[in-house]
Amino acid sequence: MENQLKKLGILLPKAPEPVGSYHPWKFFAGNLLFISGQLPMINGKLMAKGKVGLDIDIEKGREAARLTALNALAQAKTALGNLNKITQCVRIAGFVNSASGFTDHSAVLNGASDFLVDVLGEKGRHTRVAVGVCELPMDAPVEVEFLFEVSL
Amino acid sequence: MENQLKKLGILLPKAPEPVGSYHPWKFFAGNLLFISGQLPMINGKLMAKGKVGLDIDIEKGREAARLTALNALAQAKTALGNLNKITQCVRIAGFVNSASGFTDHSAVLNGASDFLVDVLGEKGRHTRVAVGVCELPMDAPVEVEFLFEVSL
Amino acid sequence: MENQLKKLGILLPKAPEPVGSYHPWKFFAGNLLFISGQLPMINGKLMAKGKVGLDIDIEKGREAARLTALNALAQAKTALGNLNKITQCVRIAGFVNSASGFTDHSAVLNGASDFLVDVLGEKGRHTRVAVGVCELPMDAPVEVEFLFEVSL
Repeated sequence: MENQLKKLGILLPKAPEPVGSYHPWKFFAGNLLFISGQLPMINGKLMAKGKVGLDIDIEKGREAARLTALNALAQAKTALGNLNKITQCVRIAGFVNSASGFTDHSAVLNGASDFLVDVLGEKGRHTRVAVGVCELPMDAPVEVEFLFEVSL
Repeated sequence: MENQLKKLGILLPKAPEPVGSYHPWKFFAGNLLFISGQLPMINGKLMAKGKVGLDIDIEKGREAARLTALNALAQAKTALGNLNKITQCVRIAGFVNSASGFTDHSAVLNGASDFLVDVLGEKGRHTRVAVGVCELPMDAPVEVEFLFEVSL
Repeated sequence: MENQLKKLGILLPKAPEPVGSYHPWKFFAGNLLFISGQLPMINGKLMAKGKVGLDIDIEKGREAARLTALNALAQAKTALGNLNKITQCVRIAGFVNSASGFTDHSAVLNGASDFLVDVLGEKGRHTRVAVGVCELPMDAPVEVEFLFEVSL
């Protein structure tokens, strides 16, 4: 998948710093790699703020979700050295900062899900839980947590 | 537990399709079976919509939660072939579409928790996190994610 | 870490009872210990109620989060007999009952995260997902789920 990133012309950003007293990633003694909830940060700033369906539209929300997945791969790269050690993406949990009445969380989170498949191929397919919440840290439009299976 | 289902007169539905670009279930190389967030779908439609405590009452919310657990077993059946391969239910995460001021998420999610124990016996007991959210995909009243330990 | 608790002068409370039909903790056959979502209970009562940023301030929210972590250790103690069997804290998921416009979930959840590091040292560092929700069970200000790696 390192190759696939190159083919897609995608440069991994510097892995975002945590916004609190926690680790951005952590190995499980078996071979799970837990990645903390990622925000759509780019160069240390949120690419967008506010509620999907009010402050930003679905398309922008989808881009934001994609960016969380990119940041998750950046975290994984830092953790693993080489993304080819990922054997599958097991689970993502997506929280969408939702305007009242906004129910298309699926379309938003496909931004992350589709990106993982673009980069990791079939290994990138994962289980997902997607919900709408009323507030997110720093007024981010989306936050996504990731769980990978890895071969060390 | 296949037997227990029969005894309870419960027919598993067709496992619901995902509502986005993700897998409904996924094995972990160890022996965890992750099931995506399940909505209370019946024959491809939500059995109810809206907020618990406003659009629907607790009892209906509990039925909806029970239906997510039934759908999770349907997913597990598809994944495992035989539900007897389930050695325990490890965790469920329940998200209740909550009216303002509604705080009885526990009563709602007991619909799923009690059902798992009805079908799986003591193995069906699990850990749980239950929260109230402001919006769910498709305006579902409840969404529940499941994690089983399995013996392959 | 049993020693560290003593040094910090912290007495573990009785592990809180679940508020529904689920288990407070559960072993995974590998060596993961799942702890159900913990509320800031003290002697069977919530130490505070309501929304952070409206009914209670950040500092109180942080204390509430710290209390969920203390309760999680109490659960772990019940499960393990000895907390020294914890090899690391892998993940916490924090849900903050958020006033409209409240976005400093990170500061609130640091109450739990910092406490885990105080007690467990570097092993206490974990991954985290933190979101704001509109309602929590019993009108709790915060609910936190915990995942530990343990050596049995």
